[in-house]
Amino acid sequence: MLDCAIIGGGPAGLTAGLYTTRGGLKNVTLFELGLPGGQITQSSEIENYPGFFDHTKTGMQFMDSWQEQCFHFGLKHEMKKVERVAKTGEHFTITLEGGSTVEAKTVVVATGSTPKRAGFKGEDEFFGRGVSTCATCDGFFYKGKPVAVLGGGDTALEEAFYLSNICSEVYVIHRRDSFRAAPSTVDRVKRKDNIHLITNAVIEEVYGGVMGVDGVKYNQEGETKELAVPGLFVFVGHNVNNSVLKDENGSFICDVNDWGEVIVNLSMKTSVEGLFAAGDMRIEAPKQVVAAAGDGATAALQVIAYLQEQA
Amino acid sequence: MLDCAIIGGGPAGLTAGLYTTRGGLKNVTLFELGLPGGQITQSSEIENYPGFFDHTKTGMQFMDSWQEQCFHFGLKHEMKKVERVAKTGEHFTITLEGGSTVEAKTVVVATGSTPKRAGFKGEDEFFGRGVSTCATCDGFFYKGKPVAVLGGGDTALEEAFYLSNICSEVYVIHRRDSFRAAPSTVDRVKRKDNIHLITNAVIEEVYGGVMGVDGVKYNQEGETKELAVPGLFVFVGHNVNNSVLKDENGSFICDVNDWGEVIVNLSMKTSVEGLFAAGDMRIEAPKQVVAAAGDGATAALQVIAYLQEQA
Repeated sequence: MLDCAIIGGGPAGLTAGLYTTRGGLKNVTLFELGLPGGQITQSSEIENYPGFFDHTKTGMQFMDSWQEQCFHFGLKHEMKKVERVAKTGEHFTITLEGGSTVEAKTVVVATGSTPKRAGFKGEDEFFGRGVSTCATCDGFFYKGKPVAVLGGGDTALEEAFYLSNICSEVYVIHRRDSFRAAPSTVDRVKRKDNIHLITNAVIEEVYGGVMGVDGVKYNQEGETKELAVPGLFVFVGHNVNNSVLKDENGSFICDVNDWGEVIVNLSMKTSVEGLFAAGDMRIEAPKQVVAAAGDGATAALQVIAYLQEQA
Repeated sequence: MLDCAIIGGGPAGLTAGLYTTRGGLKNVTLFELGLPGGQITQSSEIENYPGFFDHTKTGMQFMDSWQEQCFHFGLKHEMKKVERVAKTGEHFTITLEGGSTVEAKTVVVATGSTPKRAGFKGEDEFFGRGVSTCATCDGFFYKGKPVAVLGGGDTALEEAFYLSNICSEVYVIHRRDSFRAAPSTVDRVKRKDNIHLITNAVIEEVYGGVMGVDGVKYNQEGETKELAVPGLFVFVGHNVNNSVLKDENGSFICDVNDWGEVIVNLSMKTSVEGLFAAGDMRIEAPKQVVAAAGDGATAALQVIAYLQEQA
């Protein structure tokens, strides 16, 4: 019987592991099929995690420095995919791929959310080197330079607005001629001098070299055009990685919102006692490493308090 | 007119400064009378901030690494004490010591909370070198060793319980013969073999040398006794630093709870539009650097979104 099962090995899960084990829990396992680290390992540079300001280090190197620390206090790592979590009486049953099960007194789910890819040529090749899905994270790297944004929803236009305060020009490429975003957002974007809307257009390719992206080729009404930009931001939606919280009938075991994000309070408590959520999969998540790590610490302290109450 | 006024220079305020300026706000000032850094600068060692795991560095050195980064993107520092914040129409007026005022479109309050000192001999001298006010932060440094706890409230007993899972013995020193903590908490603590309650006792002195604390002298019913412990945890209450949120009549300008902690939601929004709170002064704060920093990032992104909506 685990004191705590942590599902997901990004910043939230790792920090939950650090805080539970350093807080005296003896039997804590983090389930992550691959190497822990999370999405940030795909970034080529990080400058907004407080206390870490080294332009020569990549996201992979940044998370390297977390590994020793987060596993130093006794956290175990199980390289297994979790199929689902169920509350069985007072405890939880974690079903792993292949069907084996593990029992746990508490669970922290921190499986994140995954930005969708648009599918154009060069998207994967240049991801983290010019292609980004996070304006907050990467906008500043294009200060005073032109960038392109792909998408037409609320997020795309809000992020385009955010970028317009940093970058010289923002070209929004959208496949339709109207926008799904809220009318007030569309109005605001249209009033901004350095935002340019390119409608009825589809990105064909992002191209560049060893230094990163040089430009974008898009097709507008049958004609191929080019934009010489060093950065392209893709906002075509997110998948919340919440499948472990679905039972065998596909129903969620805890409350989620319309987008499948887990509903939590300020203590990262879900609607199920002993089950906590942390990081990008929860409602209102700012989707920043430091905030996910804060969630992980918060959830871990609540796990310890919950176990104390049961003692 | 400031885009954003940040009040308080601890981890929450500094991170809010980093995220607002890196997010493109041109005119952001952090008000902090002294050197930014916060309470953590009083610690001799930090091992629970993810990504920072260097036992040779002090809290002061740890926060040093934040300064360059958080001020790199244009954040200004005003070494002034803020008297109060008032919402005047759509904007805020910040009154500084001496009576001068500054206008701001948004405000992030991050003035923290200050653990009370008990007032015994050696308390200040050994603070951060054996005397602590945070079991989560410092408990692990006494793994397998005996520690003393001062206090008799809920926090004191809950923290004693937390420490009992890490330390060999926990001696709780309390000035009365009964405890103010919830009966269930008192029962739980009494059932724990390695927690020892010392009642009707007052700490006279904590003593030690250059390496830190060697022990505690306390007076129990007229007799001076000693405990040879390397760590003493003082839990005699907190002062929430909320005075800047009081108007001239002493009423709070936003909703606070019974303890004076600012009520926020997951976005760090207070009950006043454009006013955000972050870090240890808010409700349910885990009082950890990484969580305060997460709050600061969250509040900053909300500041930017709020200003965009007004654009």
